[in-house]
Amino acid sequence: MDRLIEAIEAKDNPSVVGLDPTQALVPPQAFTMEIEFSEKDLEAFIKGLRSSNSPGDQRVLASIDNADGMEAKIKAAKDALEQADPGAEIVEGFYEFNCAIIDAVKDIVPAVKPQIAMYEAYGPIGFDIYRLTCEYAQKQGLYVLGDIKRGDIGSTAAAYAKHLTGVNSLKDDCNGQPWSEDAVTVNPYFGTDGIIPFTDAAKQTDKDVFALVRTSNPSSKEIQELELADGDRLYEHVADLVEGWGADSVGKYGYSRLGAVIGATHPEQGRKLRERMPHTFFLVPGYGAQGGTAADAVQMFDKNGRGAIVNSSRGIIGAWKKSGEYREEMTKEEALDLVGRSARASAIAMRDDLRKALH
Amino acid sequence: MDRLIEAIEAKDNPSVVGLDPTQALVPPQAFTMEIEFSEKDLEAFIKGLRSSNSPGDQRVLASIDNADGMEAKIKAAKDALEQADPGAEIVEGFYEFNCAIIDAVKDIVPAVKPQIAMYEAYGPIGFDIYRLTCEYAQKQGLYVLGDIKRGDIGSTAAAYAKHLTGVNSLKDDCNGQPWSEDAVTVNPYFGTDGIIPFTDAAKQTDKDVFALVRTSNPSSKEIQELELADGDRLYEHVADLVEGWGADSVGKYGYSRLGAVIGATHPEQGRKLRERMPHTFFLVPGYGAQGGTAADAVQMFDKNGRGAIVNSSRGIIGAWKKSGEYREEMTKEEALDLVGRSARASAIAMRDDLRKALH
Repeated sequence: MDRLIEAIEAKDNPSVVGLDPTQALVPPQAFTMEIEFSEKDLEAFIKGLRSSNSPGDQRVLASIDNADGMEAKIKAAKDALEQADPGAEIVEGFYEFNCAIIDAVKDIVPAVKPQIAMYEAYGPIGFDIYRLTCEYAQKQGLYVLGDIKRGDIGSTAAAYAKHLTGVNSLKDDCNGQPWSEDAVTVNPYFGTDGIIPFTDAAKQTDKDVFALVRTSNPSSKEIQELELADGDRLYEHVADLVEGWGADSVGKYGYSRLGAVIGATHPEQGRKLRERMPHTFFLVPGYGAQGGTAADAVQMFDKNGRGAIVNSSRGIIGAWKKSGEYREEMTKEEALDLVGRSARASAIAMRDDLRKALH
Repeated sequence: MDRLIEAIEAKDNPSVVGLDPTQALVPPQAFTMEIEFSEKDLEAFIKGLRSSNSPGDQRVLASIDNADGMEAKIKAAKDALEQADPGAEIVEGFYEFNCAIIDAVKDIVPAVKPQIAMYEAYGPIGFDIYRLTCEYAQKQGLYVLGDIKRGDIGSTAAAYAKHLTGVNSLKDDCNGQPWSEDAVTVNPYFGTDGIIPFTDAAKQTDKDVFALVRTSNPSSKEIQELELADGDRLYEHVADLVEGWGADSVGKYGYSRLGAVIGATHPEQGRKLRERMPHTFFLVPGYGAQGGTAADAVQMFDKNGRGAIVNSSRGIIGAWKKSGEYREEMTKEEALDLVGRSARASAIAMRDDLRKALH
């Protein structure tokens, strides 16, 4: 967790911006890309398909070959592209939106947290945009916390842990890094088997993992607050497991590579967990739109003002909607400029809010 | 769950083949694709990139433009392709492997269960192969159970639930179906908020959902078997929640659209859960390679021999390795033929093993 802690201290800002775009949170101008497709483009497109070995490309090729006449062939190509990736215009708009936000906040915040579900919702092409978002953020010097919440039995968890270690290819062992994540979130329901592949991967690669302990949503209490026979609540038992799983990777600031997700919506539980998990760094969602305040969030910090990072997603990336400045007739550039300015103002306000509550 | 139950009865076979390929489970002949890339191919490739709006494609274009001389440009193109998708040769081999298995078992088994982690391990291109695998299996008449084990707070779960409802595009609302799944697995740790978006999506689309209750891995007991203050074990409490969440979607065979994952490695617990969850259909992993037997698995069935489907992954897709027939000098076609024949024999043996234990 040392890299994250140093990034936080360099900017004196324990907050992370959640990059969770939805169609409603992105100004429609970002979605104005339209594929122009001439006869000449079709030729080039077909040649590209012929040189590819991918089964998907071969299927597109067949549909074009079967179409009768040039107009039908062009339509077949466009249909095939659209059928394969029906949300392409939307999710490609997300990328420009994300870049506008990253550019606007990169000197203020230490980290971003893209929520993979928002990209996964658009099918395979969504993952390209998720990957490009992570890569762009890392290149701007930000710590990238991939909010993937994966979890499975050991052998399957090992496959998911390649988010951290990268992809092996046939030509050389294990060198591709498609995801560009510095940390990922995981679900603890499988116990040790499901966690160790991730913490091993984190140790190998100087990265981190955050396990769910006490989530911010209202119904989380149905399972997480169950009272156990020994008097503990379930989330307290999970907290003890997490503290134990991280024990062999404590870094120079006293925190292990296995952090915990503790919602800002449970400040009193968070305060007690802070004492119960002295070597576990907290990722704190639920500030802002979900109802958590800075006074709630600071319960999760240690006496040195360390030990946690607070996430806000909608409050920052959707700030442009509350600015009063948005106009439908804005160009894409004007709209994305407003997105960036509003996100920056909101990120500064959050930073100052947290600083004030902490000091 | 009616569609799955009818598919099982049509083939008198309550088993599902897990499509969980790894490099070790696939004969190396499947990975022999090599991209040939001539000067003419480069030209076509560049034209294709110029006609694309994707930020990734624009980045590849820039790297080619910056390279000096034809050889360097071709190398830049191939490097960019490989860097973007370092495991492409491997995961494209998975597709041919999966198709060989699907073709060999499609008249015997009612369903397949691709484990998305095995594809996700190879980055965004892995999802293309996952999607194509699901699509191919559906076209062969199989019920496709996407083993994705997603779970998050309500708004994020709604994004994941698009696995079932499909992707909306700008041009027409909600019509793309990139994933081709008939059901998905979900994690219950978030409580009701995290489940309802999936069950709502399933009701809308005549599909199903399976929630984790008692997983097959050894360390699952650390959390799932915790004793609660009321005397129940945690998994029993989750079982009651799942039975309740499904109550409004019970179909004509008495089972709801929300099933439960119950490992074959816990036969005695499974037998009791069968009584405790009378309207919940079970997905039973852990048969074969993980140690569960047919005698264990039949504990999960009701008195009519219904109520569960048993998964085997490695035991079927890796059967070729135990056949004694594999030779390094086999062609790709010969190797994939052996994969298919071995999978078929193993799937028949599993079916007969289950039939015998049930009747």
